[in-house]
Amino acid sequence: MNTTTQTPATRLTTEQKAQLTTGASFWATASAGDLAAAVLSDGPHGVRAQSGAGDHLGIAASEPATCFPPAAGLAQSWDEDLVQRVGEALGAEARKYGVGVLLGPGVNIRRDPRGGRNFEYYSEDPHVSGRIGAAWVKGVQSRGVGASVKHFAANNAETDRMRSDSRIDARTLHEIYLRGFQHIVRHAKPWTVMCSYNKLNGVSVPENRWLLTDVLRRDWGFDGVVVSDWGAITNRVAALHAGTDLQMPGGGDASVRTVTDAIAAGALDVVDLENATANVVTLLERVAEGTAAPTVEVDFDTHHALAREAAARSITLLKNESNLLPLPTDRSLAVIGTLAATPRFQGAGSSRVNATRVDIPLDEIRIGTRAPVTYAPGIAAPDESADSQTLLTEAVEAARLADVAVVFAGLGEGQESEGFDREDIELPADQVALIRAVAAVAPATVVVLTHGGVIRLSSITADVPAILDTALLGQAGGGAIADVLFGRVNPSGKLTETVPVRLADAPSYLNFPGEHSQVLYGESLFVGYRGYDARDIPVSFPFGHGLSYTTFEYSELRADVRNGDIQVSIEITNSGTRAGREVVQFYVTRDGSSVRRAPRELKAFSSVELEPGETSIVSSVIAREDLAHWDDRSDRWLIEGGEWTISAAASSRDIRAAAVASIEGDDLRPLLTESSTMAELLEDPVAGPMVANMLGGAEETEHMNDQLGIDIARMMGSIPLDRIAGFGRGGGDMERLRGLLDHANAARGGEGA
Amino acid sequence: MNTTTQTPATRLTTEQKAQLTTGASFWATASAGDLAAAVLSDGPHGVRAQSGAGDHLGIAASEPATCFPPAAGLAQSWDEDLVQRVGEALGAEARKYGVGVLLGPGVNIRRDPRGGRNFEYYSEDPHVSGRIGAAWVKGVQSRGVGASVKHFAANNAETDRMRSDSRIDARTLHEIYLRGFQHIVRHAKPWTVMCSYNKLNGVSVPENRWLLTDVLRRDWGFDGVVVSDWGAITNRVAALHAGTDLQMPGGGDASVRTVTDAIAAGALDVVDLENATANVVTLLERVAEGTAAPTVEVDFDTHHALAREAAARSITLLKNESNLLPLPTDRSLAVIGTLAATPRFQGAGSSRVNATRVDIPLDEIRIGTRAPVTYAPGIAAPDESADSQTLLTEAVEAARLADVAVVFAGLGEGQESEGFDREDIELPADQVALIRAVAAVAPATVVVLTHGGVIRLSSITADVPAILDTALLGQAGGGAIADVLFGRVNPSGKLTETVPVRLADAPSYLNFPGEHSQVLYGESLFVGYRGYDARDIPVSFPFGHGLSYTTFEYSELRADVRNGDIQVSIEITNSGTRAGREVVQFYVTRDGSSVRRAPRELKAFSSVELEPGETSIVSSVIAREDLAHWDDRSDRWLIEGGEWTISAAASSRDIRAAAVASIEGDDLRPLLTESSTMAELLEDPVAGPMVANMLGGAEETEHMNDQLGIDIARMMGSIPLDRIAGFGRGGGDMERLRGLLDHANAARGGEGA
Repeated sequence: MNTTTQTPATRLTTEQKAQLTTGASFWATASAGDLAAAVLSDGPHGVRAQSGAGDHLGIAASEPATCFPPAAGLAQSWDEDLVQRVGEALGAEARKYGVGVLLGPGVNIRRDPRGGRNFEYYSEDPHVSGRIGAAWVKGVQSRGVGASVKHFAANNAETDRMRSDSRIDARTLHEIYLRGFQHIVRHAKPWTVMCSYNKLNGVSVPENRWLLTDVLRRDWGFDGVVVSDWGAITNRVAALHAGTDLQMPGGGDASVRTVTDAIAAGALDVVDLENATANVVTLLERVAEGTAAPTVEVDFDTHHALAREAAARSITLLKNESNLLPLPTDRSLAVIGTLAATPRFQGAGSSRVNATRVDIPLDEIRIGTRAPVTYAPGIAAPDESADSQTLLTEAVEAARLADVAVVFAGLGEGQESEGFDREDIELPADQVALIRAVAAVAPATVVVLTHGGVIRLSSITADVPAILDTALLGQAGGGAIADVLFGRVNPSGKLTETVPVRLADAPSYLNFPGEHSQVLYGESLFVGYRGYDARDIPVSFPFGHGLSYTTFEYSELRADVRNGDIQVSIEITNSGTRAGREVVQFYVTRDGSSVRRAPRELKAFSSVELEPGETSIVSSVIAREDLAHWDDRSDRWLIEGGEWTISAAASSRDIRAAAVASIEGDDLRPLLTESSTMAELLEDPVAGPMVANMLGGAEETEHMNDQLGIDIARMMGSIPLDRIAGFGRGGGDMERLRGLLDHANAARGGEGA
Repeated sequence: MNTTTQTPATRLTTEQKAQLTTGASFWATASAGDLAAAVLSDGPHGVRAQSGAGDHLGIAASEPATCFPPAAGLAQSWDEDLVQRVGEALGAEARKYGVGVLLGPGVNIRRDPRGGRNFEYYSEDPHVSGRIGAAWVKGVQSRGVGASVKHFAANNAETDRMRSDSRIDARTLHEIYLRGFQHIVRHAKPWTVMCSYNKLNGVSVPENRWLLTDVLRRDWGFDGVVVSDWGAITNRVAALHAGTDLQMPGGGDASVRTVTDAIAAGALDVVDLENATANVVTLLERVAEGTAAPTVEVDFDTHHALAREAAARSITLLKNESNLLPLPTDRSLAVIGTLAATPRFQGAGSSRVNATRVDIPLDEIRIGTRAPVTYAPGIAAPDESADSQTLLTEAVEAARLADVAVVFAGLGEGQESEGFDREDIELPADQVALIRAVAAVAPATVVVLTHGGVIRLSSITADVPAILDTALLGQAGGGAIADVLFGRVNPSGKLTETVPVRLADAPSYLNFPGEHSQVLYGESLFVGYRGYDARDIPVSFPFGHGLSYTTFEYSELRADVRNGDIQVSIEITNSGTRAGREVVQFYVTRDGSSVRRAPRELKAFSSVELEPGETSIVSSVIAREDLAHWDDRSDRWLIEGGEWTISAAASSRDIRAAAVASIEGDDLRPLLTESSTMAELLEDPVAGPMVANMLGGAEETEHMNDQLGIDIARMMGSIPLDRIAGFGRGGGDMERLRGLLDHANAARGGEGA
């Protein structure tokens, strides 16, 4: 909450306040008296600190920094501890370069596989996004550096992102698109939140007071700074009133004057400016406190090792027929594909890091084995005019001569980026042809995939026995890939986004990326696996899927309600011959729910590392608040009581055990009003008897049924009180009944009455 | 348009005006001086005139009237002439009973297969709905009786229909849900339009001035009366202001007083009341004129014959392996299923007609053949406690002994009705079991289906060689079924709604029937075949499908643009051995369109009757206005120029010929504003050069590309003018550029500038 009276904000002049809420340069705030300016810097997966003086667009060369796995990769670890350690390293590097706020994490929902910036986001699921994002924030902020949770909110496409209006129903907005942000704000207390460029339900986000003040501050208790995405503000006064505290990159004197003029003219409430100023001052204080703490020496080698650990943990084994993987070190390898020699390890755009060094997968493979390794590019590198047929033939020949072919395939830099969305999710045709040609001569073919957004795999899945999905792995990905290929690391990553059989199966397919600056979120709650499951559509690889070099057995699931939360625990046994880690997912189902729900929703996850033959209990807690649905009639979270089925699963479509938990719920009935239907009134113990009397006797009902062939009682039940008179019913009772409504509501107990 | 000065309306007192716009009884208006009150009566497929004095709920027994095929059946004829003749007969019967306005046609879109009132509506396609509806209106009104096009608008579910808010984007609303109404209003000039119970985008329809006045009267030129659906009005004053002229069934003195009080208090503009009064007076004048015209004697036998002709024309042959149908009259038949003996020929609810007589299919089959006919119910009739296993065994035995089994199956009265939606689209399980058991012993099994809404057929399609879809056929359906079974009529009906493989494939599946009084039309434009086609989902039987006992060959298609319209013509040859009729469908496709579109949209249809071996040219016109899409930026219809592919087809998925028409289009570019993007400005000949200058040189762009790995030019292109300053661009040019916008817009020509 704003505590304007306890900060120096009120002692500043209007002009000083205006200056303080306006970026002083592309990457820095103004200073405030003794409080130094704060430097903000791009980069959820690495620090992009401008080198030298920087340029006016903030995209000059940046200082070297460790490039950790981007979100698309890192999330596949499902490992909050690991993510927190990455956050700590990021915080340390930020400190090293004098960065006070690191602009991350990006926790928007990957609504559609074509989203151009999906590689910067964690998942199609808000629970994963919220948990991973919170760990990142905790890690960074533990080093005295602020986080900036972004892009708040409902910015799920790059197309026309500065004008696009995301039209989302209230339930979907709260349950899918805001839920991850809410978790992070409440549980990780980020110093800043970055508002997005788009509109939300008709109102520009930087000017959306409902979102930035009512929801973020009032409902969630956010006590930091809302910073505009760079260039997001068009109406500065409206933005300040809405709760956008800090304009970045700042609009110079003109912008400051706009604020002071508005105050002078009474067009902006001074309280709005003071609140924003107080929030910025608080931020500068936090940054100052962080800066004053002892620095942690940054050892780039240690960070590179952490980057490699994180990368290896993120690699997801999609398919592994006949245990082709891991590769014995005595089998000759044909490594094929330009991505083996020139890896793509991060995405393009503002998150791009100047990596301290880059591991080359081909080199790491050569180091990792004692058998011969040949290399063939297979396809022409970008801008290269090699004869593609010759390259293909050479690659096939190399594959034929080797024991195992390892094909590196994926999306190149030009194929996905911040700034635009993809139009399809295809692997480039030349790579599909390469994979098929190689697999035709080399039954032992492993495909190693590099990509930010999801790619369709039904074009190759049947052709190859093994697929490793590396998403984007950061600078140490090359070593991590070798670690997994040779079994030095047993893969344990799991998908955080469904891989559909066809793009046309995606729930948002026909509503993405919108048209004429409008995006209808027509699939509503049914995003990602929620939609595939609700329509029972086959997928190539489900959400949460990921194999291991060992196998795990699940015992019976226990689900006990304690203090409202559900404690889940299950014994997991490593039934194979290698040590390994299993990520156990817990989904909930409320059969016969009074509201629409996906068949299964992820509400907890936990992992365990087990030696061969070892058994251990995996426990987790499904927080009571995570069972709530958003009630769009009363604008609040409500929990539906009754029997909930809890599933322990190895993926969203690989349920291994289930248990039932009996939940005490809220009263879901809306307050009775004149719009309440006869059926709703009949159900009420106070209003019911009178309504029954109004609706007439059984004889008359039977006569009506007879004439129209319909169930009159059912039809009458759907008529609201305020229309019943129009059907010749009610008469004198109506007024008395209206009087009863308050009594009936009062009898329902405190909250709603 | 209202012409208040030319009617007696202005000479009435305020109280008289209030009385005239308020129903005087359940089924009648008030009178106005010499002008008699008008009687309104239910019934799109028959006149439901109250017998005797009627009752206060208007559902007393009604006078006998011909029950023509309900909309679900009649539309399958795709025969506007036939529908117009049915309308004429309905008009004549209405006159006979003193009915001035017949409450039909119902032309809402069948958005979801579960819609409880789908049987009263024509199609999932607005073109079919509009054309069939217009023919009905023309027919009825040619007899001096008014029509009431209903339920206007966007009432596509029965669930919570009195409160439900239909949330629909502008394009979808205009192109799908309003387009049929628009066609009818413009081309058939109905005397009245009935507004629906629901809300539309947050505003109660009877109080929706945008819909009832701006769209209906101003844009479409409607000059009749908007009558409320019975009991739809809760706020009388708001309804009058919005353009709901006539409250039905009337709220008595209290409602009249509400109006006079509002006028006295200045809460209602007297002009609103005068407009409504003038419209009602016009209606009474039209009714008086109709009443004054010589009556046409109603011959119920002639009407029954017409009902039989219409029913036969509506029957749709879905499947006919090995030409099992038509049935030779020398083959013994086992007729199975209670619906053969007790036909269901209309739906339940307000449209239910007291039929003058009813043909029994079983009797008509016995009359129609010289071979033995046995009958077995197969399943227990409702309320009957027969042993179902015995019934099944008897039916199977009857089938085994006969040459051909004819199984009547379908939905019973309790399974669909006005007032509620279905929860699934299944044929009852006992009937599926019956069909399978019969087909297992009788390879020659014909299934005759009765139903209002679509039923899933993938449960039986593979099991039986022949399926006749009769939907609902009205009182003469029994004879019509025999006509088609024995080949006295060659079937030519075509489906007006897709039969999906699974309910979960329906585009609206997850958004129907809504929740908490809100329905999100999330599938947007992609309703019915538009959605199945856009996602390329297999269907059991596509929209427009229907077989014949003969075959038709399609020649090449000609498509010539004349005066903006597309004249289409194609030679059709009856290549089989029986006379028959083919309904030719014309779909349009705009490849590479600038807006989202379904792969194919129906824009014309026409039919031809051909003797064996005969060839004839089928011609039709695709009206230029039907090519338009709704532009949600400028709130108007626009036509996209370029090459359009026109397809001639036997169904939406049986394209027989195609041609390309070159269309001259409108300027689709939106006016330039400060929200226009750099890319939009660059395209403009006036603003473009200056913008190019602002965006900097190639060298700087290359540097930026290098640092971020992205296509900076593409990213800059998406930035709106009013944000460009936030990125350090523009500077002094900005003001000058703003000045250029008007010039640039002016250069685009009159309309938009």
